[in-house]
Amino acid sequence: MASKTLRIVPLGGLGEIGKNMMAIEYGDNVLIVDSGIMFPENDMLGIDYIIPDFRYLDDKRELVRGIVITHGHEDHTGAISHVLEAFNVPVYATELTMGLLEVKLTRSGMLKGADLRKVQAGDRLPIGPFQVEFFHVSHSIPDSVGLGIDTPAGLLVMTGDYKFDHTPVDGWPTDFGKLGEFAGRDVLALLADSTNADTPGWTPSEAVIDPAFDKVFQEAPGRILIGSFASLISRMQQAANAAMRHGRKMAFVGMSMVENAKMARRLGYLKVPDEQIVSLDQSLSMDPSKVVLMCTGTQGEPSSVLARLSTGANRQFDLQPGDTVVMSSHPIPGNEEMVHRTINRIFQRGANVIYAPIAPVHVSGHASQEEMKLMIQLVRPKFLIPVHGELRHLKQHAALAEGVGMPADHIAVVENGRVIEFEDGKMSIGERVPGGYVFVDGAGVGDVGPMVIREREALSRDGFVTVQLHLDPASGELRDEPVIISKGFVFIHDADELFARAKGLIHKTAASSNGSDLSQKVEGELRKFFHAETGRRPMIIVLTAEDA
Amino acid sequence: MASKTLRIVPLGGLGEIGKNMMAIEYGDNVLIVDSGIMFPENDMLGIDYIIPDFRYLDDKRELVRGIVITHGHEDHTGAISHVLEAFNVPVYATELTMGLLEVKLTRSGMLKGADLRKVQAGDRLPIGPFQVEFFHVSHSIPDSVGLGIDTPAGLLVMTGDYKFDHTPVDGWPTDFGKLGEFAGRDVLALLADSTNADTPGWTPSEAVIDPAFDKVFQEAPGRILIGSFASLISRMQQAANAAMRHGRKMAFVGMSMVENAKMARRLGYLKVPDEQIVSLDQSLSMDPSKVVLMCTGTQGEPSSVLARLSTGANRQFDLQPGDTVVMSSHPIPGNEEMVHRTINRIFQRGANVIYAPIAPVHVSGHASQEEMKLMIQLVRPKFLIPVHGELRHLKQHAALAEGVGMPADHIAVVENGRVIEFEDGKMSIGERVPGGYVFVDGAGVGDVGPMVIREREALSRDGFVTVQLHLDPASGELRDEPVIISKGFVFIHDADELFARAKGLIHKTAASSNGSDLSQKVEGELRKFFHAETGRRPMIIVLTAEDA
Repeated sequence: MASKTLRIVPLGGLGEIGKNMMAIEYGDNVLIVDSGIMFPENDMLGIDYIIPDFRYLDDKRELVRGIVITHGHEDHTGAISHVLEAFNVPVYATELTMGLLEVKLTRSGMLKGADLRKVQAGDRLPIGPFQVEFFHVSHSIPDSVGLGIDTPAGLLVMTGDYKFDHTPVDGWPTDFGKLGEFAGRDVLALLADSTNADTPGWTPSEAVIDPAFDKVFQEAPGRILIGSFASLISRMQQAANAAMRHGRKMAFVGMSMVENAKMARRLGYLKVPDEQIVSLDQSLSMDPSKVVLMCTGTQGEPSSVLARLSTGANRQFDLQPGDTVVMSSHPIPGNEEMVHRTINRIFQRGANVIYAPIAPVHVSGHASQEEMKLMIQLVRPKFLIPVHGELRHLKQHAALAEGVGMPADHIAVVENGRVIEFEDGKMSIGERVPGGYVFVDGAGVGDVGPMVIREREALSRDGFVTVQLHLDPASGELRDEPVIISKGFVFIHDADELFARAKGLIHKTAASSNGSDLSQKVEGELRKFFHAETGRRPMIIVLTAEDA
Repeated sequence: MASKTLRIVPLGGLGEIGKNMMAIEYGDNVLIVDSGIMFPENDMLGIDYIIPDFRYLDDKRELVRGIVITHGHEDHTGAISHVLEAFNVPVYATELTMGLLEVKLTRSGMLKGADLRKVQAGDRLPIGPFQVEFFHVSHSIPDSVGLGIDTPAGLLVMTGDYKFDHTPVDGWPTDFGKLGEFAGRDVLALLADSTNADTPGWTPSEAVIDPAFDKVFQEAPGRILIGSFASLISRMQQAANAAMRHGRKMAFVGMSMVENAKMARRLGYLKVPDEQIVSLDQSLSMDPSKVVLMCTGTQGEPSSVLARLSTGANRQFDLQPGDTVVMSSHPIPGNEEMVHRTINRIFQRGANVIYAPIAPVHVSGHASQEEMKLMIQLVRPKFLIPVHGELRHLKQHAALAEGVGMPADHIAVVENGRVIEFEDGKMSIGERVPGGYVFVDGAGVGDVGPMVIREREALSRDGFVTVQLHLDPASGELRDEPVIISKGFVFIHDADELFARAKGLIHKTAASSNGSDLSQKVEGELRKFFHAETGRRPMIIVLTAEDA
């Protein structure tokens, strides 16, 4: 009977960093874990962001019992509006995570219809046939949880994003006791974070940032600007603590930074007394050595505060000599160039920049190799499914597990869309289901596919040339001059002679043609001509106009 | 008198990694050092490579006395044909560097007319009023040199690219004695490599790669493919040595790899006995455990051997399970995403991949912070000019120099195009001259500028829509249906309804128009319509056809 099979269906996050989403299926019941987005890679031209492809659930809409979100980062929450649009089921999350989800659902106008159910670490509740137990993990955002999911086929443990930080900012380490307790209950499978699987050792504690901040605060002659993610609530707390220690007031800059700080303070996850906080406007008239600005923009995103400051395009204020900018995050893979360019430009404006590895002003929120081994030893699962990571990370995670004694055939390295099945305590690799990218571009969700991306790629390389031919309908012969318009191909002001010769070629082609297929012939001739002359291959569009 | 001023004119390599080129000017004499290219950043769309902007020398053509090339890497040699086209003067380089230059000049058809003068480390020769002394430095290619340049205004020392490797592959460390001797002669200014200025410590010796290779060779069950740069001659030697130690034969794969290996063997810089080498064809019919393939493609460049193998698009052979691929280089900044994608795809094909930091199969060829301090202490220059690096590296280099006691006003951190002048033992910052990017795109050198790049950027984001209106010449009214063609905007097969409505809008606009400016009005209306419908902003081109 199929209903005795537990199916794990990875819809996102396996074989990539980002857009985490997993379906857990037993009988006529589906539980969704996380609903994240991924940021486009450099060659996904024009794409705003990417959501998981959850078409697999299209004919199982009625079976979805709930959505659990493990923590408040974009790669676990960002697609929540898209997912809730498809399945209007209860959403379970801890308080801070829920606060961040509410900000999102308010923006998309979906807050009102959503069934949001707050949980806390330690809670255990039934969702369909699953008993879901939330346990605390330390990560770079407070209130993160992993999940113990008791299913009729056995106990699953999902770590979520985690590290074993003994001195986290909120003083709440990962719940070792609960992991040990799970081990005592016989864990069928562990689904564990692989993000840093090629990083040796143990990820440094968030605590190493405090002395690094202290050094910056002691030496900075003027304003301090700390750049970080708007969702890195722990880092905001560390910056606020340093500000208090060094007699500086703090202002939040950038819409998402302001919104998240407000929400986190309201809920008690960011502890800063009112008198410690000033508005940006107030800060600008204060003694610079008494000010800390908490800004977005450590990824060099052009619209962020730091990027605008680096190019002098910020409206409210400018960088000034004496400013010290702290880049308190690592570049997301693919963003290195933009991040470094932002750093260089800030130096050009006369400010100083502190960034890793110059000083330890950022640490990863994910476990490194030694922690991943410890997780396996603590939980002692029968099977391991490495999750959250590119294929290389999943492979390294598997190698580490083999290194600590797990049999290779008890480890499943799969990518999105490959179903893993458990029945009678055995694991097998099942069918393949959709698990690719769904591109969001403006208002369009999924309408931009490989064909459009290929066209954009060709246009980005060599631009295009549009040619209008005016034909005599009776003879099919060319009348008047052809019109040539090009963009992204050559600098127009230098191209008069090139286009004059192209027009000559069109006339010649028309003269030697018997009238049929003229536009196709012109296209072919121009293709050869432009490549010979420029070494480039612009897209060529030939339009013909005939008199009716 | 101006003729007593020594001018250092950085035309490339200051404020960026790549396209190194420097002009040293005294009186009516100019010496050029290096002629490199830079690879395009991710947003330099469609650009093949970038050469230095040397317009500054346009009216000094007659004054150029020679070109010295410090070593054979692309970022120091790649623009040689462009530079020699402008100034046909003697080129000075060591034997291996000259060999690599000859390969280049042969390809561009310029070998015959070139005046190439071979030198070796230890040589001292006059070039115009300059006494140029070549001294050996260790770097990731053999036969690299730094320069001592005796000028009438004082002694300059240029490190070129270097590291202090005590156990380099060719057994020839950087010439400490000569650096000390320079110090005894009072060095006016040191121009020193800044590439790794934000890397703490001391760069590991190339020797650490040998045991890492040994481990790979012991464990690899089948073929070994080592990916590296075609100009990394030292790495070829290390791979060949490991192959000999482990009883494997070696084949070179990829045109530049084959050409460079042949040349380096002929000149004696790559020492591999004939019987150790097989052709690719031979290797394919051998026992896989007896084969090493030396390939290009560690940067994920789509046309390289490894990238083609990773996508299954290589013509001569495919990857097979049991293969071990060694990525023996670090990603050039900006290439991280492509490199990681290549690694993931190789894993997908069932091969194993060894890359840093999983194993130390690559080390940098550039000095780290402690070596940079040592260089300053050895040479004891009066002034320091950090070169080779982005602005952040130049700034960190300056901070290191201040840390070892150099006065801040004896250090000049400048970017390309900012002249530095020395007179009577004093340094001053002089005028600004051109020092930007010259884009090479196909056959065009410098014709693609910011305008064309902006157009490509817009096209890459949202594509374009071309509309043809057919007007009645008498009334100016719309006749027939408009023709709409789009590329890179929406998926055509899903857009019938969108374009039908756009045509309706065009008719409405034409009907309410008095005939003037119709195409401009249509463009404006379509812009609004498409943005409202799709959230995108395609480029819109409206063509009108009227009967004569």
